[in-house]
Amino acid sequence: METVAPRSRRTRPAKTPLSREAVVAAGLEILAAEGLAAVTMRRVAEALDTGPASLYVYVANAQELHRALLDAVMGQVSSPEPDPARWREQLLDLMVAALATMDRYPGIARVALADVPTGANALRHADTMLGLLRAGGVSEQAAAWGADALSLYLTGTAVEHSIQLERDWSEERLEAYYEEIRRTFADLPAETHPHIAALVPFLTQGDGDERFRFGVEVLLNGLLHTPAPTVAPWR
Amino acid sequence: METVAPRSRRTRPAKTPLSREAVVAAGLEILAAEGLAAVTMRRVAEALDTGPASLYVYVANAQELHRALLDAVMGQVSSPEPDPARWREQLLDLMVAALATMDRYPGIARVALADVPTGANALRHADTMLGLLRAGGVSEQAAAWGADALSLYLTGTAVEHSIQLERDWSEERLEAYYEEIRRTFADLPAETHPHIAALVPFLTQGDGDERFRFGVEVLLNGLLHTPAPTVAPWR
Repeated sequence: METVAPRSRRTRPAKTPLSREAVVAAGLEILAAEGLAAVTMRRVAEALDTGPASLYVYVANAQELHRALLDAVMGQVSSPEPDPARWREQLLDLMVAALATMDRYPGIARVALADVPTGANALRHADTMLGLLRAGGVSEQAAAWGADALSLYLTGTAVEHSIQLERDWSEERLEAYYEEIRRTFADLPAETHPHIAALVPFLTQGDGDERFRFGVEVLLNGLLHTPAPTVAPWR
Repeated sequence: METVAPRSRRTRPAKTPLSREAVVAAGLEILAAEGLAAVTMRRVAEALDTGPASLYVYVANAQELHRALLDAVMGQVSSPEPDPARWREQLLDLMVAALATMDRYPGIARVALADVPTGANALRHADTMLGLLRAGGVSEQAAAWGADALSLYLTGTAVEHSIQLERDWSEERLEAYYEEIRRTFADLPAETHPHIAALVPFLTQGDGDERFRFGVEVLLNGLLHTPAPTVAPWR
């Protein structure tokens, strides 16, 4: 066995100086690799070669850390300048980009469902989304609530994807799962389930991307065709 | 101290005989009182005064137990016979009833997001929902994907509610939370966030029920106004 020469502390690489940015960057790396459940104060502290107590200056607790990560993830999606001639395409692109970005960070969408996101990037996106709906001629009340409905559709889809990603199924396992559902639908007798039986080919076609885009189009067309209700004060 | 007379086993009340129904009933009770995370095989076994090993005959594991609970919860919602003259009202009532029922069982909606629900009651509701959309004149492909979008809107909303219910905040705490968000919106300068600033009154009015109903109306109107896409095979 060789003797390992003792290494002076002076020759070790310098630690990253602690900052909120460094904490968020370390958290994002763990999030991308292992999903939200792995992003604890302890794990982030370890990654930064420090103790959890040193982190509290920058983020108060795991919940605040998760919120900061959500906003950092949303910061990776750029907001277009609303253009009345292209508002629909811009909004669809924004939704598709936001979903793809969330899909790179499994579980982050749960944070968006837990609280109304109020980070700087979340507010920028909310403003853009409202601007796009107004550019498209959606009425004020419908735009206000419509942005909520679009966000819920986005985060709900991302949570579904997160569950799939966290399971980490093989291509074969996933294919078998879809085949099982296909068979469940196809085997239902028309006497007991007339509508499923009639629509089997329609139920079992289209990939996730096509379905997501269709849902966004449905929401946009619905917002253009739904009169704004008169409402009571919040909540 | 009094001596307690030994009690014969014969005079103890008889245990509930084990069955899948008894397992599900015990699980539902724990779910309603403490939320999904509390519904483990161990807890259900305890409630039935038996060991976890005795449960495996009726449900293979916690995942299967949770799926059985989801279907039992959906079984508490009745499906109407689709009527072309009242399809919209029937669909809205079904969605509102399903949400109210899920709200009584905090966390159950997560099970619906994790897998395509294929229990007997889920399939009955899916068939009804497709029947209602067809009765309303929604095209076949739009109905097939629309049922998906409606389900996602329902379960996404129910997951949001679950998070609130699991926090178990006081009325005051919840009011303070909404007030904080209201203030965040109201304080944004029009120069940086023109659309939020312009829509503050619209953003902060309407309760959860009004918003949910509006979202369902938007999806229904959107389904009536969105051409069915041509699509590639599933997934």
